[in-house]
Amino acid sequence: MMADFRIVPIGTGSSSLSHQLAEVLAEVDKSGVDYKVNDMRTVLEGDWDTVMRLIKKCHDKMMESSERVTTIITIDDRKGRTVHIGDKVASIENALGKSLRK
Amino acid sequence: MMADFRIVPIGTGSSSLSHQLAEVLAEVDKSGVDYKVNDMRTVLEGDWDTVMRLIKKCHDKMMESSERVTTIITIDDRKGRTVHIGDKVASIENALGKSLRK
Amino acid sequence: MMADFRIVPIGTGSSSLSHQLAEVLAEVDKSGVDYKVNDMRTVLEGDWDTVMRLIKKCHDKMMESSERVTTIITIDDRKGRTVHIGDKVASIENALGKSLRK
Amino acid sequence: MMADFRIVPIGTGSSSLSHQLAEVLAEVDKSGVDYKVNDMRTVLEGDWDTVMRLIKKCHDKMMESSERVTTIITIDDRKGRTVHIGDKVASIENALGKSLRK
Repeated sequence: MMADFRIVPIGTGSSSLSHQLAEVLAEVDKSGVDYKVNDMRTVLEGDWDTVMRLIKKCHDKMMESSERVTTIITIDDRKGRTVHIGDKVASIENALGKSLRK
Repeated sequence: MMADFRIVPIGTGSSSLSHQLAEVLAEVDKSGVDYKVNDMRTVLEGDWDTVMRLIKKCHDKMMESSERVTTIITIDDRKGRTVHIGDKVASIENALGKSLRK
Repeated sequence: MMADFRIVPIGTGSSSLSHQLAEVLAEVDKSGVDYKVNDMRTVLEGDWDTVMRLIKKCHDKMMESSERVTTIITIDDRKGRTVHIGDKVASIENALGKSLRK
Repeated sequence: MMADFRIVPIGTGSSSLSHQLAEVLAEVDKSGVDYKVNDMRTVLEGDWDTVMRLIKKCHDKMMESSERVTTIITIDDRKGRTVHIGDKVASIENALGKSLRK
């Protein structure tokens, strides 16, 4: 299962957002779950329980320094098939016959 | 905690989608979790574990009849405050001084 | 085309959020575009340009009172078919043979 | 303005999805808009009109080979500030004092 998530705190000044997100990403980085971070969210690889346990931990971390938090989770799940981070972009590049910016 | 979710199956004809979604909503309807369905997604009210357990059940139900499923979950969580379904629209209408279509 | 959107301001106290959202919904309400508001977002009915012009107006309105804004738009588009607000829920209820909370 | 989008076709076999997405990414790649693709979506940098014009082109391209398409757009907009692709991850790494997987 592939998933990505984005956590947005509401009710705090946006200046400290990098520090709040650094605390969140520290959780991801030490979790042992395979991940990749981009400018808008973090991609995770793993089964439902692994992924959700980690996202809950990140959400709770953000709640510590915020009054209100919005977390968006998107799951992409394929029956009987394990897809690893990087596979999907590689498969699109293959179909396109061209390398993409990533 | 308030949350909403949207489950989209990929790889099946779109004609049967109402039936697939009916099976998903049957899970929601019998769960005992407070919900409200709209044209794009289903709003749930409850704590993280209650909400996620139900969404996982819905996701698994959709996987039974699909090869690939995308599930999008959005959480809106406020510290030390229980918000019930309907409260937020009522509070916007109150600020607006006018009733909205809902 | 059916779409829904959710606008979240970052960097302001969450206490004034109802008033900010009331200003946004005032734009929607007077736009003439068919809509329905729920606890998490607003559903719109119309073609791409109509829907996007209205959402841009709402986003700009929120930017007036916020330093940073996240807007999430979800589009559901079917070839050669007009779907009206309420149709999809009715079609799921029909497949389920049961009325749902809405 | 930073944005990302994800286009999911419904009603076609999932096997051809890479080819459909390759056609979409070809539009992005030749557009001149700065972008970065990841396993779940594509990040774009530009003002509202530039970004939305490109996403509409991508959505229309996917509609050519699909009966039904869901497109999700997330915008992150900051007043009076231009943020470039890569800036936000760099700023989190800086706050964290550590390099992240990207």
